[in-house]
Amino acid sequence: MRRDGRTAHDLRPVRITRGFTLNAPGSVLIETGETRVLCTASVTDSLPRWLHGKGHGWITAEYSMLPASGGRRKARDRAGRVDGRSVEIQRLIGRCLRAITDLAVLPERSFWLDCDVLQADGGTRTAALTGAYVALHDCLAHLKETRNLRAWPLRTQIAAVSVGIVDGEPLLDLDYSEDSTADADMVLAMTGNGKIVEVQGGAEKHPFSPEAFFELIEMARGGVEELLGHQAQALGLEEAG
Amino acid sequence: MRRDGRTAHDLRPVRITRGFTLNAPGSVLIETGETRVLCTASVTDSLPRWLHGKGHGWITAEYSMLPASGGRRKARDRAGRVDGRSVEIQRLIGRCLRAITDLAVLPERSFWLDCDVLQADGGTRTAALTGAYVALHDCLAHLKETRNLRAWPLRTQIAAVSVGIVDGEPLLDLDYSEDSTADADMVLAMTGNGKIVEVQGGAEKHPFSPEAFFELIEMARGGVEELLGHQAQALGLEEAG
Amino acid sequence: MRRDGRTAHDLRPVRITRGFTLNAPGSVLIETGETRVLCTASVTDSLPRWLHGKGHGWITAEYSMLPASGGRRKARDRAGRVDGRSVEIQRLIGRCLRAITDLAVLPERSFWLDCDVLQADGGTRTAALTGAYVALHDCLAHLKETRNLRAWPLRTQIAAVSVGIVDGEPLLDLDYSEDSTADADMVLAMTGNGKIVEVQGGAEKHPFSPEAFFELIEMARGGVEELLGHQAQALGLEEAG
Amino acid sequence: MRRDGRTAHDLRPVRITRGFTLNAPGSVLIETGETRVLCTASVTDSLPRWLHGKGHGWITAEYSMLPASGGRRKARDRAGRVDGRSVEIQRLIGRCLRAITDLAVLPERSFWLDCDVLQADGGTRTAALTGAYVALHDCLAHLKETRNLRAWPLRTQIAAVSVGIVDGEPLLDLDYSEDSTADADMVLAMTGNGKIVEVQGGAEKHPFSPEAFFELIEMARGGVEELLGHQAQALGLEEAG
Amino acid sequence: MRRDGRTAHDLRPVRITRGFTLNAPGSVLIETGETRVLCTASVTDSLPRWLHGKGHGWITAEYSMLPASGGRRKARDRAGRVDGRSVEIQRLIGRCLRAITDLAVLPERSFWLDCDVLQADGGTRTAALTGAYVALHDCLAHLKETRNLRAWPLRTQIAAVSVGIVDGEPLLDLDYSEDSTADADMVLAMTGNGKIVEVQGGAEKHPFSPEAFFELIEMARGGVEELLGHQAQALGLEEAG
Amino acid sequence: MRRDGRTAHDLRPVRITRGFTLNAPGSVLIETGETRVLCTASVTDSLPRWLHGKGHGWITAEYSMLPASGGRRKARDRAGRVDGRSVEIQRLIGRCLRAITDLAVLPERSFWLDCDVLQADGGTRTAALTGAYVALHDCLAHLKETRNLRAWPLRTQIAAVSVGIVDGEPLLDLDYSEDSTADADMVLAMTGNGKIVEVQGGAEKHPFSPEAFFELIEMARGGVEELLGHQAQALGLEEAG
Repeated sequence: MRRDGRTAHDLRPVRITRGFTLNAPGSVLIETGETRVLCTASVTDSLPRWLHGKGHGWITAEYSMLPASGGRRKARDRAGRVDGRSVEIQRLIGRCLRAITDLAVLPERSFWLDCDVLQADGGTRTAALTGAYVALHDCLAHLKETRNLRAWPLRTQIAAVSVGIVDGEPLLDLDYSEDSTADADMVLAMTGNGKIVEVQGGAEKHPFSPEAFFELIEMARGGVEELLGHQAQALGLEEAG
Repeated sequence: MRRDGRTAHDLRPVRITRGFTLNAPGSVLIETGETRVLCTASVTDSLPRWLHGKGHGWITAEYSMLPASGGRRKARDRAGRVDGRSVEIQRLIGRCLRAITDLAVLPERSFWLDCDVLQADGGTRTAALTGAYVALHDCLAHLKETRNLRAWPLRTQIAAVSVGIVDGEPLLDLDYSEDSTADADMVLAMTGNGKIVEVQGGAEKHPFSPEAFFELIEMARGGVEELLGHQAQALGLEEAG
Repeated sequence: MRRDGRTAHDLRPVRITRGFTLNAPGSVLIETGETRVLCTASVTDSLPRWLHGKGHGWITAEYSMLPASGGRRKARDRAGRVDGRSVEIQRLIGRCLRAITDLAVLPERSFWLDCDVLQADGGTRTAALTGAYVALHDCLAHLKETRNLRAWPLRTQIAAVSVGIVDGEPLLDLDYSEDSTADADMVLAMTGNGKIVEVQGGAEKHPFSPEAFFELIEMARGGVEELLGHQAQALGLEEAG
Repeated sequence: MRRDGRTAHDLRPVRITRGFTLNAPGSVLIETGETRVLCTASVTDSLPRWLHGKGHGWITAEYSMLPASGGRRKARDRAGRVDGRSVEIQRLIGRCLRAITDLAVLPERSFWLDCDVLQADGGTRTAALTGAYVALHDCLAHLKETRNLRAWPLRTQIAAVSVGIVDGEPLLDLDYSEDSTADADMVLAMTGNGKIVEVQGGAEKHPFSPEAFFELIEMARGGVEELLGHQAQALGLEEAG
Repeated sequence: MRRDGRTAHDLRPVRITRGFTLNAPGSVLIETGETRVLCTASVTDSLPRWLHGKGHGWITAEYSMLPASGGRRKARDRAGRVDGRSVEIQRLIGRCLRAITDLAVLPERSFWLDCDVLQADGGTRTAALTGAYVALHDCLAHLKETRNLRAWPLRTQIAAVSVGIVDGEPLLDLDYSEDSTADADMVLAMTGNGKIVEVQGGAEKHPFSPEAFFELIEMARGGVEELLGHQAQALGLEEAG
Repeated sequence: MRRDGRTAHDLRPVRITRGFTLNAPGSVLIETGETRVLCTASVTDSLPRWLHGKGHGWITAEYSMLPASGGRRKARDRAGRVDGRSVEIQRLIGRCLRAITDLAVLPERSFWLDCDVLQADGGTRTAALTGAYVALHDCLAHLKETRNLRAWPLRTQIAAVSVGIVDGEPLLDLDYSEDSTADADMVLAMTGNGKIVEVQGGAEKHPFSPEAFFELIEMARGGVEELLGHQAQALGLEEAG
């Protein structure tokens, strides 16, 4: 039994609120337990320089924690200081969303997924990706309604979850108290059709065996499938996929 | 009659939600119409260098708009770019809160008021200050409860409102559509005992007469008094002051 | 009686020297008492990105104190550090000059007003604006003489002064010793035809009543009128306006 | 058969040169095929602020490509620009080396592993980690010889390799031509006793099945074991471990 | 005959004004022809980190051109942009002043020589050094008068001049029109007792013979001697040395 | 006799290795004693803004020391910190190479000479320039072979050496132990036809007489001539020139 009554295989309660703010075409508040991330999707007509004139679009993500979102105040990324962890996370989110999108049908447009953590209790990067997918979906649906979309570019859903080993036990969806004492933890991002897009596992404290690793992957698969269901439900889809 | 049915002297509906996030000792969501600002108050034991060893505390504010909070995406203040308007606003908020606080009873501590705009529809700086006061109050109350406060440092409340001249008419509490067509606009920050702390008025489009200016001040006084009442009610005080 | 023998309503001696340096089309040294600011006006054909192709011009200001201009050495704004006070001041100067200028007759040109404080003794921001107007006038006159100006863009003059409350007394044009002990201070920028462009008043130490505020505004009006006269005289105009 | 005659399971030729430069206590040139990375280990007595006074040491890594190391010149990370990929890689290397080191026996010292890519042909991050381990070993051996080491802090070796799927085929140790056309690629960092420290796999082009993923892991295990042997041989150890 | 009537060996008219601004203990305006540089000397008790606790002082210089000091506006060194030429010049000035100063009698103090170019017409770096010496002298004299100086630290004077080859002719003290067409130019910094501290000569356009180089050095010696006389006169010394 | 057995007029052993890395069209490792610098030459089609449309090319250099190249680790130039010495050196190298090149036959192309110090033992800047010339030569030869060169742009060779005064004795080609105790040191860059391009001499410790200076120049001339021979030999030229 875990601190909050969950079994090892349980996700925390998930809540996905679409249209959380008004000004972005996609705006989603995702809550997993006490973790809350605001994910917005915006469109601009600027492109990275190396994509100019190639007829493709681009998807990029920015991840940031509000200064007071965690237990002690964290200084903002102003004036040239850069937070390495944020860079790592936003690159992950960008890659994952591009992996499920046909960028060729979004010519000369950039989609910005801004993931701002309002409250942090572990699992912010996976919540951010899971919510960002829904925001991107809403943003694209808005373009479709306003007849600004040549074809539907999303090939499948994508969601992510964390797993870890705490006191020798594999656990799904670590909260902060679990994460900070974990021997190892891993993030799995998987699509609606069961394909892996990203795996990032690390064990700075206790390196683990390949067998334990495979077990973690299996546990995470179950978690992602559940999250894909939450996304589908929030979007009013008949089934995840 | 204004676009949303208000008269010239009406504020938009105000909602103040305390405890909006869990990890900061003060955390307030303030909504005025469609404008929504998250104001958190945190304490650290770092001080600006020039205050070291003087036995005083310090209050500072940071103001930032989430990239998708307004109509078109606004790039973050990363990598050395600095937004002049944000600097101006956060300095205003810091000065106003210090004006009503006895910093001598808060030795060697800094209070950080983070004002992050989730949704922008005009009046974000005045909402930020009005909400930040409540967050600071909650943060200090928390210190008092945990017996970390020598004496109560707040001398009075403070709130702020904007006024402007649109099509020749003075209007209270401009929304974005009004603000963007205003000939002149002004911000008034006033205390619970009716004293002015800051006035900032500008008329880049149509310079105005001193008489019009005095009329705007009077209109703003009424608005601030109403906001002080909202603060008092949110904090459960018997009366504003 | 004040330290330097002035009455409450007296300005310090004002001296405006045109053509102080040779390489800029407008170059003015303004001295008010011991405060000395060099204001230059330059023209470039670069525009802020959001003005491209709109057929308008732009006016922008930069304010900086030389490191040794004040009592103790102040580090330069190099390598990404930004001084919030300077940002605030240069935005004020830019807004004020744009307010009196018809930007539509200056297509695709930027005017840069550089205000560098050589010696600081209070009132540098108001001296900077007052001198910058004269520099801009000279720069435009130069363009007119060389037939590079479609029409005269200045609608009226603009000047600014500070007022404050020291030991309970309202005083005009504070020097540094007065400014550093003032309970409240205010800046008023007003045009040659008596219209207000900017009011910025603050009372970090002692919030003040609206009545005191109105009194300060009146005192400042008198000061600005005198400064407009100094400008007119320096420019050889028959009367201020 | 691959372009350079290797089978799917073959590493490129590996060469590890210790003492490549003289001024650092650990200095290793690692070459895998045409990829060449210079890894140096230095010791300083500065620590990250949050480690002060905890009696522990720290290991950190910096990764950088010389501007002309790849096919087209890459600008240096000067003046505030930051390369996200470099940040990601250097964080990976730091975590991996800390995972195999007992930081408690290295009080108040920082070890810097600088990994500078002289020539890039794919697999620079894994070569960097594999070489950095040897440089760290040499640096610690130097401290031991000069009696500056309380106890031997390395618990085991660590090395890393990349694997990928190219044209549907899993391949070990991708060179640049393979990497740039790969559907998916993965990095595995594993210790001398067969434990996983990091797995980072991504499939921006073609998400893959968990089965394919497990197959890649197995292929990578073989590659890392071979690299551990190269390290042991370079260090004159009797066997890898 | 040169454009302004000088012979090849003539300096431009030199004017050195001490006490040009009030707030710095040393403040000198140096004018050579149309070039005008404000040189101030300030004292702080901060030291570069590597000098802490060594019982020595330090002298450092900063050089900057006001944006409108030259023919076309030059952007300020804000937000991380760095001007290589300024770096080169300020390092030269710092080295030269340290060369003639006994830093051991100035324990734990830093002297800042700020050289701000008000108007540029060639020779700004040499004017800056020549003026900075006088400012440093005044600053030290002020410390001596206030009994804050253990012993007099200046061993000798220092001044600098430029020479160049224009249309095949060696010329002393180039103005901007000469400098911009010179085939080669050189800066010589020499002490009051005739010793060389710095020589910096370059010939990006036309490399020159060692013989021409020696001739330039001789011409420059004469110029520096004259400047040393101007310094001595400005300081009221009986003779240069 | 010097520490390493050289006489005062001896260079350290010089080794020039062309084609040290594969991906740049010019790539040279130059070794002088224990100093080792990797010099690469790359071509891009970007130009400094002020050269656009003038039909000329440009040559620029970047100089950087690897963090562990010297005796104690040196932090990288990241995040806005700038090393003044590096700026000075890279500007010197750029000027020298432009001085011997006809930029008019290289329209709209930039050549980047990256000089990265792998191991530092004094004389890195002169080794960098001497090696950079060979890298530029190889890069241009590559363009010629691939028929991308209108005409051969190099007019002559260029090389540089340092000289200094140690314990009152003039010495050629100082190593680090000599350089760090030198009273004065100088760098001479000279062409294949015996013309001077740059002289930079400084004596922060002991200003020296013009006669000593001329003696140093003569000593340096001999050293540069020898280096020009090494370049010629490495390039397979019949004689230096």
